[in-house]
Amino acid sequence: MSPEDALSPRAAALARIRQIVGPKGWYDTPADIAPYLAEQRGMFQGDCKLVVRPDTAADVAAVVSACASAGIAIVPQGGNTGLVGAGIPMQADAAIILSLGRMNRIRDIDPLNATITVEAGCILANIQAAAAAEDRLFPLSLSAEGSCQIGGNLSTNAGGVNVLRYGNARDLVLGLEVVLPDGRIWNGLKRLRKDNTGYDLKQMYIGGEGTLGIITAAVCKLYPRPKDVQTAFVGLRNLEASLDLLARARSASGDRVTSFELICHRSFAAAVAHIPGIRDPLTRKFDDYALFELSGANADGDMAEAMETLLSEALAAGEIDDAAIAQSDSQRADFWRIRDAVVESQKFLGGSIKHDISIGVSRVPAFIRRANAAVLALLPGARPVPFGHCGDGNIHYNISQPVDMDLETFLSHREAVTRNVYDIVVDMGGSFSAEHGVGQLKLREMARYKQPLELAMMHRVKSALDPEGIMNPGKML
Amino acid sequence: MSPEDALSPRAAALARIRQIVGPKGWYDTPADIAPYLAEQRGMFQGDCKLVVRPDTAADVAAVVSACASAGIAIVPQGGNTGLVGAGIPMQADAAIILSLGRMNRIRDIDPLNATITVEAGCILANIQAAAAAEDRLFPLSLSAEGSCQIGGNLSTNAGGVNVLRYGNARDLVLGLEVVLPDGRIWNGLKRLRKDNTGYDLKQMYIGGEGTLGIITAAVCKLYPRPKDVQTAFVGLRNLEASLDLLARARSASGDRVTSFELICHRSFAAAVAHIPGIRDPLTRKFDDYALFELSGANADGDMAEAMETLLSEALAAGEIDDAAIAQSDSQRADFWRIRDAVVESQKFLGGSIKHDISIGVSRVPAFIRRANAAVLALLPGARPVPFGHCGDGNIHYNISQPVDMDLETFLSHREAVTRNVYDIVVDMGGSFSAEHGVGQLKLREMARYKQPLELAMMHRVKSALDPEGIMNPGKML
Repeated sequence: MSPEDALSPRAAALARIRQIVGPKGWYDTPADIAPYLAEQRGMFQGDCKLVVRPDTAADVAAVVSACASAGIAIVPQGGNTGLVGAGIPMQADAAIILSLGRMNRIRDIDPLNATITVEAGCILANIQAAAAAEDRLFPLSLSAEGSCQIGGNLSTNAGGVNVLRYGNARDLVLGLEVVLPDGRIWNGLKRLRKDNTGYDLKQMYIGGEGTLGIITAAVCKLYPRPKDVQTAFVGLRNLEASLDLLARARSASGDRVTSFELICHRSFAAAVAHIPGIRDPLTRKFDDYALFELSGANADGDMAEAMETLLSEALAAGEIDDAAIAQSDSQRADFWRIRDAVVESQKFLGGSIKHDISIGVSRVPAFIRRANAAVLALLPGARPVPFGHCGDGNIHYNISQPVDMDLETFLSHREAVTRNVYDIVVDMGGSFSAEHGVGQLKLREMARYKQPLELAMMHRVKSALDPEGIMNPGKML
Repeated sequence: MSPEDALSPRAAALARIRQIVGPKGWYDTPADIAPYLAEQRGMFQGDCKLVVRPDTAADVAAVVSACASAGIAIVPQGGNTGLVGAGIPMQADAAIILSLGRMNRIRDIDPLNATITVEAGCILANIQAAAAAEDRLFPLSLSAEGSCQIGGNLSTNAGGVNVLRYGNARDLVLGLEVVLPDGRIWNGLKRLRKDNTGYDLKQMYIGGEGTLGIITAAVCKLYPRPKDVQTAFVGLRNLEASLDLLARARSASGDRVTSFELICHRSFAAAVAHIPGIRDPLTRKFDDYALFELSGANADGDMAEAMETLLSEALAAGEIDDAAIAQSDSQRADFWRIRDAVVESQKFLGGSIKHDISIGVSRVPAFIRRANAAVLALLPGARPVPFGHCGDGNIHYNISQPVDMDLETFLSHREAVTRNVYDIVVDMGGSFSAEHGVGQLKLREMARYKQPLELAMMHRVKSALDPEGIMNPGKML
């Protein structure tokens, strides 16, 4: 009899899985597995005995098939840069981690069709570079782009800094290849701008957080590469002015605003004070700043003219009181460093309670004022640090601890503060998770704020497409 | 006992439905029902004994609930401008038609958030006008816009002439209100650019052809209204040149090409010869023409300069041999009349076999040449009339009858011709229904060309969301 016969179905399946992926394709020592269990904010402690790293869709399918036969749960993982614990297995799952990192080939790039076909494990920055090499733009851009993988970006429907013009990850996908929970491969790698032949099934896997299947490859849209990028850093007269400035910038540039980021004085001041290389481009201090960018696809300098005109009009209209336009790529990088330093600089303000929320763009100022008041009433001395993708109505509403309060006491208020903030968000028609997803972190909010009918519809979809429930159990639902 | 007790469950439900919508809300005489059964190309003869026209989502829900209780099938219908028979009930259904035409309110428009909230029965042109009144653009535009309704546009994921820049109907939706097959109302009317809190359920109803529920309202995206539109009508050196011209236009205009339409000489010549008011803007004849448009959102005239530059470069590069730029709105309208007249002008060429296909943009010329050769081999003398949304890879591949063949004989080849064309499309990675959908017309193609696995996935979604199968039975699946 073969050695497998002596094993339990689970043990036999795990042995088979090792054979499928080969010696290079799996880890089972605590030391090797540790990096796959580490969640960057330390909010979740993962547990798992086996990490498999198949390097083809066929091997992913074979692994999933073996798991299905033995009822072994699977947690798909990309670059492990997620912020809600969606890629971290929980102890109760007794799951294996299926890492897509070795599936990192760019299968095809078609500049005339403006598409690129990539495997799930491709690092986002590598896809951007491959597109640039063909004088095209892959617009998805976010702080983790150097290590996050496109499969994870699609499974979480990532947002980032270019959503205003190019949409979320969902809007950049034409086709998917997905390994289903029974181990079959669905080849939906269409390269078409138009295809109305049935339900658009790929939409369930995009943003599905790996709970319905495993994305192994995707056809993504490309765009002409911007040749004329103008970046401004401005001091806002007040929060409300950000709306007028955004509307002005969209119309003055011919709707070429690709980023419109809000930065509040607290994080900015901390960055200038503590982070080397961060300088204030302006001569005065403001409560709120905006960093925004116009991107023209041709090099004729239109955007420079548009930027200068709209800024002088915004100054005249009293929307802004000071502005700086980047005069070089390095100055542009300096401006973006201010934006990118917000999270790091917040550490100099002590502990932080964070919220990734969205609201109608026109309601952003009202939300921030209302949330600030509620948080201060609840926790006098608390220091809100709202920032982020203002142009999408997506605010990272973070709160730093009061100067005279110890961290433990501050964090003991987390639940009350968070509930207050989300109650306001939902009351104003907003979302308690704009771009980070649900994962493990926001299951309580799903139960509290999601309509029961909508939850029931989600459960029906889950049961229809993952009837055995082996895909990323306990996440999102 | 109440009169209803004496009736069968079906009859009782139908009586209840009449009460729900009131005397103005239903038709049951053949004369009144006839318009709802008429399919514009006369390809399907509908059958139905009751048309209900509720004017609120609550009434739609009550009607659906009554139908669910008695197992009565429902065929939702918008403007009845569809081309695949999706809105036409079949005799076997014993279904009622639920017309959304009275739900025609614009519930809200928010220029700063760039959103408009509309009911399903709103005429597309009225939504465009409401947006324009706020200096915004609702970009969905197609030939039926004067009578089609947004609910139908979304249920079929309509395409049209602005997809190149703004995407399909799917890409213009932020939220939906849907009446589910059990009569419950799902309020998914979000106005958010970012919301990652679970499966994006609305995507199943968009393009779902009414088989999963009834869209009663939607939140749609608006854009800055173009202030500088430049329209050119050009004679192409050859089909392949259309690709170079499109790429040149996208980059020269800063990706501001909003339409790029292909027009072939046959339909154009017929239009010039037979349709009053259609003139040839060029001095020579060509095999293929392109009508394309650049839309700048600001009035500074950049597009005029970009258009002149790119056309002279295209002439120098030998991509085009003649070009005319519209010098006025009326001339622009004249150019578009040529495009819009293609379908009508084809009637002067006799009978026609039509295909709404899509292919990778870079493969359009190869597809047309290959399909032309196949069709001529099969049917010598046949006259292909390929035209349409070349910039999206969406070609309306129509074939006019040979001059020396009678209509009946020609149409007797329909099945063979159509299969040949679709075989080539699918072999080249294309779609047999780009923007018109499946409905009743393309059920055979669904069975022949759709992967069995994908069909099985669709059936699972259908069973999960419409377990009793009362929504638009026999369509799409």
